[in-house]
Amino acid sequence: MGEFLVRMNNAVTSPNFSLNSLPDAGRMDIACRCVTNAIFLSFALRKNVKIYLNLNGPPNPPVTICFDTNKLKNVYPDERNIASHIKIALRKLNPNFEVESEPGITVSKKSFEQIIKEKFENGFDLYYLTKDGKDIKEFDFKEKSFFIIGDNKGIPQKTELFLERYIKDKVSLGKIEYLASACITIINYEIDRKKY
Amino acid sequence: MGEFLVRMNNAVTSPNFSLNSLPDAGRMDIACRCVTNAIFLSFALRKNVKIYLNLNGPPNPPVTICFDTNKLKNVYPDERNIASHIKIALRKLNPNFEVESEPGITVSKKSFEQIIKEKFENGFDLYYLTKDGKDIKEFDFKEKSFFIIGDNKGIPQKTELFLERYIKDKVSLGKIEYLASACITIINYEIDRKKY
Repeated sequence: MGEFLVRMNNAVTSPNFSLNSLPDAGRMDIACRCVTNAIFLSFALRKNVKIYLNLNGPPNPPVTICFDTNKLKNVYPDERNIASHIKIALRKLNPNFEVESEPGITVSKKSFEQIIKEKFENGFDLYYLTKDGKDIKEFDFKEKSFFIIGDNKGIPQKTELFLERYIKDKVSLGKIEYLASACITIINYEIDRKKY
Repeated sequence: MGEFLVRMNNAVTSPNFSLNSLPDAGRMDIACRCVTNAIFLSFALRKNVKIYLNLNGPPNPPVTICFDTNKLKNVYPDERNIASHIKIALRKLNPNFEVESEPGITVSKKSFEQIIKEKFENGFDLYYLTKDGKDIKEFDFKEKSFFIIGDNKGIPQKTELFLERYIKDKVSLGKIEYLASACITIINYEIDRKKY
């Protein structure tokens, strides 16, 4: 269970980035680690997990790529493998409609705000991860929970104001600020520990 | 705080692996993700963390590489960057003594068993991460805690028997089996939450 949206401020929106220098592609390495931590268990994919990467870097922002574990195939946890799937998605991007670039991977021109509105309208509880939020241990997340996470540059203030209208609550992981990818591992873990 | 030892069954012990195919280097990608998750916070390195990668793949096993956050410099969280430091360490390996290959990174021919004995003799509490262990939430780890983690192939049975003599306890993260790298994030998180 659980869906994630990572807002990547500078991740490139062209497939012409090099798999040999992911940090130079607007920190595409962060996006890749977030996907790995969202979808993988030991020897298995998690069930019913989606992660949306919202890319806002040049030349053609925004682009949103979604990985859906219920349909994914042939995906491996190393950054380079995830990046290769992002590359394929960007290559198959169509400005007019959502495309399934590979099984379980979709790509579209949807903006961060569009994704938020769609999830809100579809009955999800939206949670914004921020250090001034309420302790994650106080929550009992329902099946349709949607977690919003910033990259290393965080969520712009204007976007935070937009979020206020849609989120159910702000969530904190304690006093320490973790890598975006680690936040996803921890959210999954906290949900696991409530269930099992 | 906290030190980690990851036993990599097949990770190569020659510097001649390709940074473009880390999984083919005996799953060196796992080793790299473990380092990132052990040492990084958002915009900072953790203090007083060491992670030992014990490599047991061809052609020259064993090799142990240690990253010490109190001395590390110029390390970045992407897998390829960590792998490049592993490559340098393997290139500077000396069979006769421990070498500091770069600031905060040491490499030696020490075996898994040697590291375990050293830590035990230095007064560390040793914990072996395994699904039949005691729930991590029941522990209150002291400053000198040392966590032993297997890679995707786990710890061989013979090695488990060896460990029995040295460990203080077995630790479990609940009913779910996580990636080795995720286990490290979770251990760090559980320790953080006890402290802050």
